[in-house]
Amino acid sequence: MSIEALTEADDGPRSKRPAILAAAVECFGEVGYEATKWSEVADRVGIGQTALYHYFESKAHCLLTIMRLGLRNSDAAFREATAGASSSSDALRAAVEAAYALSPQEVQQNRILQSNIALLANERASRREETERQACRELVAQVEHNWAELLERGMAAGEFPRRDPQMMARSLLGLVVGVWRWYRPGGPLELRTISDFITGCCVRMVAGREPDAG
Amino acid sequence: MSIEALTEADDGPRSKRPAILAAAVECFGEVGYEATKWSEVADRVGIGQTALYHYFESKAHCLLTIMRLGLRNSDAAFREATAGASSSSDALRAAVEAAYALSPQEVQQNRILQSNIALLANERASRREETERQACRELVAQVEHNWAELLERGMAAGEFPRRDPQMMARSLLGLVVGVWRWYRPGGPLELRTISDFITGCCVRMVAGREPDAG
Repeated sequence: MSIEALTEADDGPRSKRPAILAAAVECFGEVGYEATKWSEVADRVGIGQTALYHYFESKAHCLLTIMRLGLRNSDAAFREATAGASSSSDALRAAVEAAYALSPQEVQQNRILQSNIALLANERASRREETERQACRELVAQVEHNWAELLERGMAAGEFPRRDPQMMARSLLGLVVGVWRWYRPGGPLELRTISDFITGCCVRMVAGREPDAG
Repeated sequence: MSIEALTEADDGPRSKRPAILAAAVECFGEVGYEATKWSEVADRVGIGQTALYHYFESKAHCLLTIMRLGLRNSDAAFREATAGASSSSDALRAAVEAAYALSPQEVQQNRILQSNIALLANERASRREETERQACRELVAQVEHNWAELLERGMAAGEFPRRDPQMMARSLLGLVVGVWRWYRPGGPLELRTISDFITGCCVRMVAGREPDAG
């Protein structure tokens, strides 16, 4: 794992948090969140239960943290990729490509995020879990906003035909993240090939005109 | 719930199975699968735990059955919608529209299916759960195959530009089912509006040509 994907500004050099998160990403990715034993995560890091609970009060708290960091990374990658774009079409291509410029471990983190996204719908009983859930929801809204803003700018400039920017943003995101359901690192399709394919789909969806109905 | 959406050929008129499934769809839809108490489902139907266990050995068994029936309905709706189409473009439009021609309760069933799709990745310890999981996986493959076949036919006829039909089928499905993440019955957007919007996106993705790069 590019350790930054799971690190926060306030993690000191001796913090075990990033290592716990990396082990949890491995476990959740291998057997799924539901089937993962929380004690297995501690075993992989080589720490005891007490140390584990110092960082995370529950398996759900750890999962929600992984999800929040995945969303934080997506938000940051979008901003970085689109900052220098000379047109909205270029920005759109760069945003889609950035969504797939990931290490296998970051792919796993994104798959976990998408597989468990329904968890964000309902309030959590624990305060720390609920704090993470709220932060995730704000980041989901922020990511949607990033895409909608890019689309609005392109429509205002006449680069893209006018269509509902929020519905288009959600549609693009559904298409882009839908890949994490079926893509597996080491499978028959290279991520680079998928990235090019989905970029083409997004460009036609946003910038294309309806072909003449037969 | 249009009760057919949750009924099987071998359910007799006195079977409580469809009613249990309908109550479970309500519960899973309201508070999520994880937070639903299995006993709450029995209470809603007005049956005891013994009767409940006669039909389903676990909450997961019930969930996997709901998922299988949702997939079965999608497969059937696709076939029915596309059977009379006079061109592949018409078939594509009909297939997307059929995916949204649903009652609010069927929408809930689809949301539950998509929210829990990651459950299909890993083997179940129980035999009955594993049987349902395998049936779900076969139906997922069948649904993908339906879409890929439609695309291949359109490409062979020269209606659609040649692109990888399997990757395109998965992309269309990701776009179509991605709506269940954010659409809520009674929300600001009508399902009919979303259906038209996504149909346009799918047609441009499949039949559109790349606009000239800036």
